[in-house]
Amino acid sequence: MLFSKVFIPTLREDPHSAECKSHTLLLRGGFLSMISSGIYAYLPLGVRVLNKISNVIRTHMNSKEASELLMTVLQPLEMWEKTGRIKDMEEVMLRVRDRKDRDLCLGPTHEEEITEIAKKYIASYKQLPVVLYQIQTKFRDETRPRYGLVRSCEFIMKDAYSFDRDQEGLAANYEKMLDAYQNIFSDCGLDFITVEADSGVMGGSVSHEFLVPAEIGEDILYYCQSCQKYFREDAPCPQCQGATTQNRMIEVGHIFQLGTKYSEAQGAYFLDNDGVRKPVIMGCYGIGVSRLLSAVVEQNFDEKGIVWPHRIAPFMVSVVVVGIENEELLAAATELIRRLESAGIEVLLDDRDHPAGVKFKDAYLLGIPYIAIFGKKYLETKKIEIEVRKTSQKIALGSDECIEFLKNHIDAYQKL
Amino acid sequence: MLFSKVFIPTLREDPHSAECKSHTLLLRGGFLSMISSGIYAYLPLGVRVLNKISNVIRTHMNSKEASELLMTVLQPLEMWEKTGRIKDMEEVMLRVRDRKDRDLCLGPTHEEEITEIAKKYIASYKQLPVVLYQIQTKFRDETRPRYGLVRSCEFIMKDAYSFDRDQEGLAANYEKMLDAYQNIFSDCGLDFITVEADSGVMGGSVSHEFLVPAEIGEDILYYCQSCQKYFREDAPCPQCQGATTQNRMIEVGHIFQLGTKYSEAQGAYFLDNDGVRKPVIMGCYGIGVSRLLSAVVEQNFDEKGIVWPHRIAPFMVSVVVVGIENEELLAAATELIRRLESAGIEVLLDDRDHPAGVKFKDAYLLGIPYIAIFGKKYLETKKIEIEVRKTSQKIALGSDECIEFLKNHIDAYQKL
Repeated sequence: MLFSKVFIPTLREDPHSAECKSHTLLLRGGFLSMISSGIYAYLPLGVRVLNKISNVIRTHMNSKEASELLMTVLQPLEMWEKTGRIKDMEEVMLRVRDRKDRDLCLGPTHEEEITEIAKKYIASYKQLPVVLYQIQTKFRDETRPRYGLVRSCEFIMKDAYSFDRDQEGLAANYEKMLDAYQNIFSDCGLDFITVEADSGVMGGSVSHEFLVPAEIGEDILYYCQSCQKYFREDAPCPQCQGATTQNRMIEVGHIFQLGTKYSEAQGAYFLDNDGVRKPVIMGCYGIGVSRLLSAVVEQNFDEKGIVWPHRIAPFMVSVVVVGIENEELLAAATELIRRLESAGIEVLLDDRDHPAGVKFKDAYLLGIPYIAIFGKKYLETKKIEIEVRKTSQKIALGSDECIEFLKNHIDAYQKL
Repeated sequence: MLFSKVFIPTLREDPHSAECKSHTLLLRGGFLSMISSGIYAYLPLGVRVLNKISNVIRTHMNSKEASELLMTVLQPLEMWEKTGRIKDMEEVMLRVRDRKDRDLCLGPTHEEEITEIAKKYIASYKQLPVVLYQIQTKFRDETRPRYGLVRSCEFIMKDAYSFDRDQEGLAANYEKMLDAYQNIFSDCGLDFITVEADSGVMGGSVSHEFLVPAEIGEDILYYCQSCQKYFREDAPCPQCQGATTQNRMIEVGHIFQLGTKYSEAQGAYFLDNDGVRKPVIMGCYGIGVSRLLSAVVEQNFDEKGIVWPHRIAPFMVSVVVVGIENEELLAAATELIRRLESAGIEVLLDDRDHPAGVKFKDAYLLGIPYIAIFGKKYLETKKIEIEVRKTSQKIALGSDECIEFLKNHIDAYQKL
């Protein structure tokens, strides 16, 4: 793909509005564009990363036999009156009244809607268990939108819901989701922790949070170095009585055993095989998909720019031709790209009429894992210089070895 | 994949709310669920078809060097004041005021927002031409939502925007999009026509509509049998003076040469290579993605249910085991599925504890292109019966021949 066609409007300067490192880098790299405070459009590179993250999520959700659906943005307020959450959510709910005076809200979350769907279609124990999920845009009227995608008014979430006959079924699905979540966050290249948590406004009993240590985090935990454990309270370590240090965390996922709170309130009952009508037992499982972009960048950057983890990088190789008007160089680069693309490796060719310095600066900023350089060295030795973005390691290779090297490196990462 | 896990709540009866054939079949087949009038959730089979359609669109857009982005649902009203379209769109615009008294609307279309993005980032002729598109949910406060996804309040569109230096550039991009659109609608299995159209509220000069003949269509054209041409006016054929017949059409796509209407109003200027600042010349190109689901079903059904065109079918093969408790049958079916799936063919196994009659009825209703039957015939002859959904042709084949037959048939369709 050509840099000029993808539309990658990188910025030379840090934008004034940027509030933290990930925000700055995503704006400067042309991943995001602010439309209004807390409201962001995803430019093509941002969409590519979002799609990669979504596919990681789909792979692990599908492996647990969860099935994807797509609920609505507009939700009738009646649903929220049934559970009483209209009061709890009042502050953050954006409301609309349509021309027929229908009262709607822009879905801040979808427990109520999925429970209506369960109520409509699940009649018998034979239809259970089932796990449904969606990847969808949600809305919250935030008092203080912050840090770009970390706390925004319009954001993308993956939300999943499990439906079971009994508590054992719920516990089994909950375990499956816990496992899927660990795999998802690992594949996204995150350093994260899993901790037991409060259920809060969601209701239910058991609950776990997935947290990413980061300077800009808004959740605070305390860490005991000698026990290597995190705690909620600011106190000596409950295990060794030693001192703890404060750590800031970004919440990227949260899962809940809801039980029957929603099914009872909304009347989602099924007929069990003992002939008794029972409320469906539910769990819910959320991931902040757009927030993940920011969390990953907070953990993966250096002084030159972003360093994307392999599985969610917008491209795998960035090709820089120093002197793109040189026909031999362009021909060699084109041939390498053809071969890499036919091996399923995504390549971005910087075809812009810009000085080499600008191209390198942008290549580093965008954080694509490998940079392939065609320049003076190639003309003299016919060797392509490969720079590994993360380690700055440089290696000069002939065209066949170059393809071999990239394939092996990329395969090795995919297997991790 | 297992029928019981995918969540396919088929209905025995036509729902009362259904207004036309596609609406009935999509509700009965468990593709859609109505949340409120004009507001539909997509159940897993619906999502699978939506994803197939989206991928067809992406393939053909990307082949024209268009690049995918994702704009916002919430749009500041100021943008709409600049172009004056706030008045034109007033009737259908859903508005929200947030806690900071910010006036927003739920994007009914995105010309204003993309023009703001162009203004922000496109400074020089070197960045042109560029074509951007998104697949996104849009909103219209419809007076009369109708026919399910044909006219709904919350719907999915693919909208593309081209940016050029001059009229020749626009004309070239317009031709590319016209070509991409023909390919997209063909791949979706539609019988459609392309006609010149009015630009209406969009502004600009040249414009084409893509129309699908269907009983429930709301656009009316007149057809001359002898000239084989469509006309807008209810009058004798302008070419042969013969009689014309009335035809109803569903609009599935509309493309416009916008020119400089938006770039002038919003100030999206670029510096040309002659040193002169000029407004960017724009085109816009829309497809009703969710509406396509309905349009395809309106043209592809029979008395038993839907008949999905190959490229957008939710699964390719539906496996029905008559007597799923029979171990030999289940083992044979499982082995066939394993082999088909490893050949990249998507299979749905009806694992429900239901009478064979119910399973066949549902298999026909869902419209998956091939049904593979394991029953008495298999036990006696070791031959699998394949039924082609569209032609009702039945053929009994050994397991190897069966895989060969399906691969060849599916490949042949992919190449069409």
